[in-house]
Amino acid sequence: MVIIMKPEASAQNIKGIVEVIHNAGLTAKVTEGVQQQIVAVIGDKSRVATVAFDAMPGVDHTVAISKSYKLASRESHPRDSVINVDGIEIGGGTFTVMAGPCAVESREQLLTAAEIAKKGGAQFLRGGAYKPRTSPYSFQGLEEEGLKYLAEAKEKTGLRIVTEVTEVEAVETVAHYADLLQIGARNMQNFRLLKEVGRTNKPVMLKRGLAATIDEWLNAAEYILSEGNENVILCERGIRSYETYTRNTLDLSAVAAVKHLSHLPIIVDPSHGTGKWRLVKPMALAAVAAGADGLIMEMHPNPAKALSDGAQSLTPEHYYDLMTDVLKLKDFMRDEHMESIDLED
Amino acid sequence: MVIIMKPEASAQNIKGIVEVIHNAGLTAKVTEGVQQQIVAVIGDKSRVATVAFDAMPGVDHTVAISKSYKLASRESHPRDSVINVDGIEIGGGTFTVMAGPCAVESREQLLTAAEIAKKGGAQFLRGGAYKPRTSPYSFQGLEEEGLKYLAEAKEKTGLRIVTEVTEVEAVETVAHYADLLQIGARNMQNFRLLKEVGRTNKPVMLKRGLAATIDEWLNAAEYILSEGNENVILCERGIRSYETYTRNTLDLSAVAAVKHLSHLPIIVDPSHGTGKWRLVKPMALAAVAAGADGLIMEMHPNPAKALSDGAQSLTPEHYYDLMTDVLKLKDFMRDEHMESIDLED
Amino acid sequence: MVIIMKPEASAQNIKGIVEVIHNAGLTAKVTEGVQQQIVAVIGDKSRVATVAFDAMPGVDHTVAISKSYKLASRESHPRDSVINVDGIEIGGGTFTVMAGPCAVESREQLLTAAEIAKKGGAQFLRGGAYKPRTSPYSFQGLEEEGLKYLAEAKEKTGLRIVTEVTEVEAVETVAHYADLLQIGARNMQNFRLLKEVGRTNKPVMLKRGLAATIDEWLNAAEYILSEGNENVILCERGIRSYETYTRNTLDLSAVAAVKHLSHLPIIVDPSHGTGKWRLVKPMALAAVAAGADGLIMEMHPNPAKALSDGAQSLTPEHYYDLMTDVLKLKDFMRDEHMESIDLED
Amino acid sequence: MVIIMKPEASAQNIKGIVEVIHNAGLTAKVTEGVQQQIVAVIGDKSRVATVAFDAMPGVDHTVAISKSYKLASRESHPRDSVINVDGIEIGGGTFTVMAGPCAVESREQLLTAAEIAKKGGAQFLRGGAYKPRTSPYSFQGLEEEGLKYLAEAKEKTGLRIVTEVTEVEAVETVAHYADLLQIGARNMQNFRLLKEVGRTNKPVMLKRGLAATIDEWLNAAEYILSEGNENVILCERGIRSYETYTRNTLDLSAVAAVKHLSHLPIIVDPSHGTGKWRLVKPMALAAVAAGADGLIMEMHPNPAKALSDGAQSLTPEHYYDLMTDVLKLKDFMRDEHMESIDLED
Repeated sequence: MVIIMKPEASAQNIKGIVEVIHNAGLTAKVTEGVQQQIVAVIGDKSRVATVAFDAMPGVDHTVAISKSYKLASRESHPRDSVINVDGIEIGGGTFTVMAGPCAVESREQLLTAAEIAKKGGAQFLRGGAYKPRTSPYSFQGLEEEGLKYLAEAKEKTGLRIVTEVTEVEAVETVAHYADLLQIGARNMQNFRLLKEVGRTNKPVMLKRGLAATIDEWLNAAEYILSEGNENVILCERGIRSYETYTRNTLDLSAVAAVKHLSHLPIIVDPSHGTGKWRLVKPMALAAVAAGADGLIMEMHPNPAKALSDGAQSLTPEHYYDLMTDVLKLKDFMRDEHMESIDLED
Repeated sequence: MVIIMKPEASAQNIKGIVEVIHNAGLTAKVTEGVQQQIVAVIGDKSRVATVAFDAMPGVDHTVAISKSYKLASRESHPRDSVINVDGIEIGGGTFTVMAGPCAVESREQLLTAAEIAKKGGAQFLRGGAYKPRTSPYSFQGLEEEGLKYLAEAKEKTGLRIVTEVTEVEAVETVAHYADLLQIGARNMQNFRLLKEVGRTNKPVMLKRGLAATIDEWLNAAEYILSEGNENVILCERGIRSYETYTRNTLDLSAVAAVKHLSHLPIIVDPSHGTGKWRLVKPMALAAVAAGADGLIMEMHPNPAKALSDGAQSLTPEHYYDLMTDVLKLKDFMRDEHMESIDLED
Repeated sequence: MVIIMKPEASAQNIKGIVEVIHNAGLTAKVTEGVQQQIVAVIGDKSRVATVAFDAMPGVDHTVAISKSYKLASRESHPRDSVINVDGIEIGGGTFTVMAGPCAVESREQLLTAAEIAKKGGAQFLRGGAYKPRTSPYSFQGLEEEGLKYLAEAKEKTGLRIVTEVTEVEAVETVAHYADLLQIGARNMQNFRLLKEVGRTNKPVMLKRGLAATIDEWLNAAEYILSEGNENVILCERGIRSYETYTRNTLDLSAVAAVKHLSHLPIIVDPSHGTGKWRLVKPMALAAVAAGADGLIMEMHPNPAKALSDGAQSLTPEHYYDLMTDVLKLKDFMRDEHMESIDLED
Repeated sequence: MVIIMKPEASAQNIKGIVEVIHNAGLTAKVTEGVQQQIVAVIGDKSRVATVAFDAMPGVDHTVAISKSYKLASRESHPRDSVINVDGIEIGGGTFTVMAGPCAVESREQLLTAAEIAKKGGAQFLRGGAYKPRTSPYSFQGLEEEGLKYLAEAKEKTGLRIVTEVTEVEAVETVAHYADLLQIGARNMQNFRLLKEVGRTNKPVMLKRGLAATIDEWLNAAEYILSEGNENVILCERGIRSYETYTRNTLDLSAVAAVKHLSHLPIIVDPSHGTGKWRLVKPMALAAVAAGADGLIMEMHPNPAKALSDGAQSLTPEHYYDLMTDVLKLKDFMRDEHMESIDLED
């Protein structure tokens, strides 16, 4: 941490700062500038975290130097993590597609969707049984009944199951049926829930919060990792910006940034990321090119009858077409050793 | 809901739309424009919510007309709600101040803070026992021990207690000690938690999410109200924008907007809203003038030693000075019948 | 400037950085941390500005320490600036109201508006003769004809004139008729225009850009000041956020922040800041309480017939009502010495 | 346009609205809903634009139905526009790369950069002679001297020249030397400048504003088109969001959205879009996959010595590596007929 003093800070002010640092068992180094002085704090960051230098007399502001997440950082784990989800490896060069309806609506809808997902080449079936909805009057999901349909679909197709868990009490139940637990954007900083899934040994897919910085997202991953669960996959699903044409602004630069800052795999959700089915294919291809480890997409046997998010769901035809090109593109990039990000510089 | 058709939509497309509307038991009215047609959907919105018109052929986009929240709306309850929190009335022209440290750190710190809060004129003591923190390595709060100190402070000073509850399992415990349950910004769409506090009869203060629209916020309140708990107070605490000088951007226009759209009281948090103690007083005064029903502020006996958020905490001296002016201003506005928002237009 | 090295940076990397600093005639101070080293650069910032340390091997990132604006800073000019606009002083404790229609539409409309503005207590008449509009097909203003009506209104009422100048070629003409040149939000970083008005001796009101940080705004003011024109007034008019209920998000904390960082007066525009006439009064009162030096508001003799921005224009009745309370509030705050921001901390 | 009435609107209110619509020579259609009435306005939108329905009694809000831009819309011009820039065609399936330094710094720097750009496969040389800079004390560009170096570089390498024009007075001069006039993000709504370049017959590349919606961007293009210049190319260069890790948030979904809404070609700038050279290659590949018509990138013979934006400039080595993969990827997509956006749905 570096403490920037005001131009008018007194020697007394500096002395006070240095004393506090020493009392915390840390080292202070003062550098005199032309306009103002700066004090560098050397030592274990966690001790410094409990001192509010910003509130001390003579201080203009402070600047954090080192990152607060450790286990999620590339420094702590230089090679890509590969997460094994019931036999399917995610990360380290593989490419995984998860497809299915936004919500599990009925046994028939789900089994049909599963057949289509499978036929198109996905390895995972997605589908929400617990639905976080803006309004309490919107469809809230089939809950355990929905999970059972998902399990049945797995049995029929062999597809792995990814589904959202929205509350601590449901973690055990969802973990019983699902292969991959999804933490949704609205729960990215539901720290209690993060800790709970961190205590299971189930792989977790952590979606980025609507207004979360990359730093906050990796800190949220740290909550899961620090509980002992190393099987964390990130998912970029668009962030909230001022643009209203798209539902969210898909931040594909986060894919490359995460690859640089962290060893965790990262999946892209172009359905929520755009909110418009017409933009899903170009963004899916772009995600492949940006180096994503996979995709999660909404596909519905009949989008116009979907109970939620129909506007962003692909029809089966659009899904097949997209998959053909996505897989071709991924093969091409692999064959050409077209690593989009160079970790050695 | 109004469905905007594309200029090139066919008569067949319109027919399809109208059929779906009729099948849902609703009425469709088609209006022919110069460039394109529009279809108005007449009837109970919740039925329409399950149909994804956006995904139907020929549709350009849809526009929602009526609000999805009902109990929270001014239409459903034209007069201001007044929430009674252990004898203190919030809303309907009263003015309530809540002050105290960000986190309960120790018995001594809290009791000292309570004395100061009381002396300055606050009616509530704030202080977090469960702290949601970006990093798992930051101070996470004293939990039940902290709640006990809060209860002791209430006994000593008579101040009511407002404190955050971050998880379903803790609702009962927190409700045992606190007078007002705070739902923090990061949990504004933790729907499971909203339902849980909705099932208690404790008053709830619902902070606006970091990136929540006013509409989403009132829908979150609707989750609590629809479970039967009518004692909901809103709290504007700043939203996330691109500006980095302040920690958040305090949206005071939300105070007037909420007064227009809803009957629920609204409190302002200028401490989180700005992140800088120096901006707390001007924003506190501005909140009074904008028509807020109260303030919640961070004050610490010694901000430089605070375990969290010291930079935005007032010293006791700044707090006393602020309170003198805030209360004087509120009295002035009340004496002058200076209603900032006119509900009768 | 502080340069943060990567944890894996080599001694060679550090040597390279230090050399570049020395070659620029500056001093380097290296501080060794636990995880990484930092290099402080001591000396004239402008020399450092031409070196891209971020692009050098071993560098993680750099952090700016001192501000890039000088003349606009409070440090360079500790007392409030008072800008004299044709005999009316803005800043330093005065309070100035500017009111009138968004656009000058006709001689009759403007003269009627001027009478109303005057009667309500405003000192300035506002009205756009050159209108920057999103669409080329919207009403673009009466140009010089509009300026003549403004001049006539001044003659009739004594009100000073504030009007926008949108292009370099029009600066001379607008300066001929107006007392205060307005630079609109969309032109805040039209640096050529800033320099041009900087070369006149006319007072300038610089509106904050839609997505401008406070730092960028003060740098834009610096463009005008550095050309020799000291008569700069700032105007907060709302920033673009994700919220759609309001047209913009009025950032009143910017008022207090600007007072702290700069000596320039700051005016608030609650009309553009909210986009809804109903929110104008509460935000006007809040602006007074936050310490603004004045207000600029849209008022139209008949808002429903306004050629632009009718939705945010006050009717004469709402305007009179607002003015009564605003002026009463300002008097109260002045009498009570209620300085919202304390410059001596 | 659709006018949404308040639930409590009176028959008199509706009558007033309808009258105004009729007086404007338009048709009104009233639809009675369960909660509220809506009034559709049928006819030429431009007449309606001058009536402020939002300000009329009984009106809740209004919703625009049709777009305000016409010439820029896909409807008006169903096939892709192909812009011929001194013999090089942009749009309609071609792929164009523009590379070079942020600023023209010296003859030697520019000629070296031009050789590298050419060798890597770019068709255009970029380089700013007029630099819009946040601070007036930053390097402002070599102006006409810089333009001459650009012209010389063209002579030597055959590369076409793209360079920014920031002011009306310089349009003629810049147009004399450059093949493609760039309008920068900060000038996207400098309408006077847009009109001026609209009156030349030079191709124009219009960068998206920092906080511009896609709709505003296409309206800005309309300003140029409506003056008679059909040679407009759009450039996505990142938008301002709350994320601070990247300089901007590159909105690649805008590429697909623009392809859907407009016939104009769109180029992507991953350098400004990310602000970090390390993220340029993945975003360049992603832009190709998303369907962009080309790229514009910053490359500097020696980024660490760049006078501006060194942190986001590629070294020659990184540039060659990027170009190899970008061109390979583009060829692959073309060979596979991998249209990312399907215009026939």
